[in-house]
Amino acid sequence: MKKILNQPSDYVTEMLEGLAAAHPQYYKRVGVGGRVIARPDAPVPGKVGIVTGGGSGHLPVFTGYLGPGLLDACAIGEVFSSPGSDLMADAMRAVHSGAGVLRLYGNYGGDRMNFDMAGEMVEMEDIRSTTVLVADDVASAGPEERAKRRGVAGMIYCYKIAGAKAATLAGLDEVTAIAQKTADRCRSVGVALTSCTVPCAGRPTFTIAEDEMEIGMGIHGEPGVRRGALRTADEIVQEMLDILLADMPLSSGDRVSVLCNSLGATPLEELYISYRYVARKLGEMGVAIVAPLVGRYATSMEMAGMSLTFCKLDAELEALLMAPCDCPFLRI
Amino acid sequence: MKKILNQPSDYVTEMLEGLAAAHPQYYKRVGVGGRVIARPDAPVPGKVGIVTGGGSGHLPVFTGYLGPGLLDACAIGEVFSSPGSDLMADAMRAVHSGAGVLRLYGNYGGDRMNFDMAGEMVEMEDIRSTTVLVADDVASAGPEERAKRRGVAGMIYCYKIAGAKAATLAGLDEVTAIAQKTADRCRSVGVALTSCTVPCAGRPTFTIAEDEMEIGMGIHGEPGVRRGALRTADEIVQEMLDILLADMPLSSGDRVSVLCNSLGATPLEELYISYRYVARKLGEMGVAIVAPLVGRYATSMEMAGMSLTFCKLDAELEALLMAPCDCPFLRI
Repeated sequence: MKKILNQPSDYVTEMLEGLAAAHPQYYKRVGVGGRVIARPDAPVPGKVGIVTGGGSGHLPVFTGYLGPGLLDACAIGEVFSSPGSDLMADAMRAVHSGAGVLRLYGNYGGDRMNFDMAGEMVEMEDIRSTTVLVADDVASAGPEERAKRRGVAGMIYCYKIAGAKAATLAGLDEVTAIAQKTADRCRSVGVALTSCTVPCAGRPTFTIAEDEMEIGMGIHGEPGVRRGALRTADEIVQEMLDILLADMPLSSGDRVSVLCNSLGATPLEELYISYRYVARKLGEMGVAIVAPLVGRYATSMEMAGMSLTFCKLDAELEALLMAPCDCPFLRI
Repeated sequence: MKKILNQPSDYVTEMLEGLAAAHPQYYKRVGVGGRVIARPDAPVPGKVGIVTGGGSGHLPVFTGYLGPGLLDACAIGEVFSSPGSDLMADAMRAVHSGAGVLRLYGNYGGDRMNFDMAGEMVEMEDIRSTTVLVADDVASAGPEERAKRRGVAGMIYCYKIAGAKAATLAGLDEVTAIAQKTADRCRSVGVALTSCTVPCAGRPTFTIAEDEMEIGMGIHGEPGVRRGALRTADEIVQEMLDILLADMPLSSGDRVSVLCNSLGATPLEELYISYRYVARKLGEMGVAIVAPLVGRYATSMEMAGMSLTFCKLDAELEALLMAPCDCPFLRI
């Protein structure tokens, strides 16, 4: 296991210590065992609180995206493992100003169960809350089963746009509606070239041959839609574009934001080679790209591979996407 | 070769196409073959131009750090290969406003030869220029041979601080002096866990066993000071601290910026685990950390490993470090 770590069992705790030490102006540790990260100024008076949560191993997802114009708190589990309901309840308590709380997170069974339970727990404390699930991974279920899809990098757009709406002091129903609208207009697909290694497991989650890739693999190594020989960047991206556009067609005059995301080891150079092809193809279609994001936004530690996300904008979403925000990991 | 690319020979050109397409407000391609990237507003009237250059494969180094309060242009070579003198001359021409040009880059023989020649070429065009070499890699030569040391991630501090000085419209001699002062106060050391693969070579640059690490390895795979069994994060960081502090002692009351940098594949989680230990140890010494940087700032594509850089500040350097800047890859 080629990792720089101490005891695997201390991985998450030590990571959070470092995160909070490096960025005290953005992140404070609260909740049981310091496993909730909140904005230092939470709760923000009059503002709907937005919380997220999930397993570790995906930085900057989830906790990186706290800050003005973004999220308010995050409940943090072990690597690839849901945080408990107590943590999500603590996250909600930390950000509740009286205006209610939106739980905004990726569609995974463990998280849903825990976070729904947390919602019931704080309901007894008169904290009103809602849920929006991000389910953008096109490869994880067909269009007739969209509600079963997993949430991946599309959540960045949901965080940004819902966070901007909440910053206007909009009410809980409005913030929830805009988060749902954003989630409905995001589509992602990934390609994995290598596995990552969960520290406590100590060996790669799956094996894949040196000359192979897997299209549609999930960020925890969930099976994809096709495994085959590694192709050229343009061929890989074309296949990803075909998958995305079949699910959410785009046409001339449409405006989208594009996120070309490394799963970890894949370097910026390869992302720019890939983005170049996306920009060319969308340009040929007459589709305008707004505020493209190229980098590591939702990772699986040291997995090699990338994902491509489209967020189809309208005037309302574009204005919120372009609104100011402040965190160490996102510039628009 | 687990890379997302097309023809290896097109790697750099296609990367630059993508970079310019994604960030047209920061980067325009000029010069021979579009291999010079310049700020779109270059030359900035009355401002000393600062140019850098070097081989590709280190994003965001070098070209990522162009922008207000940073660099003005960059000459770009093939992967791990110096750009020619003609490119550096074009970079200097692109940013020359009449106030002169500083060449600020890492200390590598090929770059020195080409960039000195470029300086002579443009001298005949009445462009006055100076050179500051960044030579921060402590492991690459002993203290008695400091001038032979290679330049690594310390260049980020040199770019930032010299860029801030130039933004005040200070003269060439002043900008050169502050760049040299910053370079003199930066120390770095790296640890490599895996090799990377140069696309046109198609195989890893070196081999290292699954349970091994190499302390002091350079960002192109240059030999380090010690190869041995992979240790814990705290042990690795302690060894790196010992190397850095032996070369540039710090004591209570000192103020330093710390850059904990991934060489590529090593994820943010491991960087934060490592940074946590650095922060604790410097805290125990009474040394204050200013504006820590944790992330991927100077990479070797998909190499696993990290580097640690200290920049020892005084009031002048700290004020310039904290001055505003704007590029996609650096937030202070």
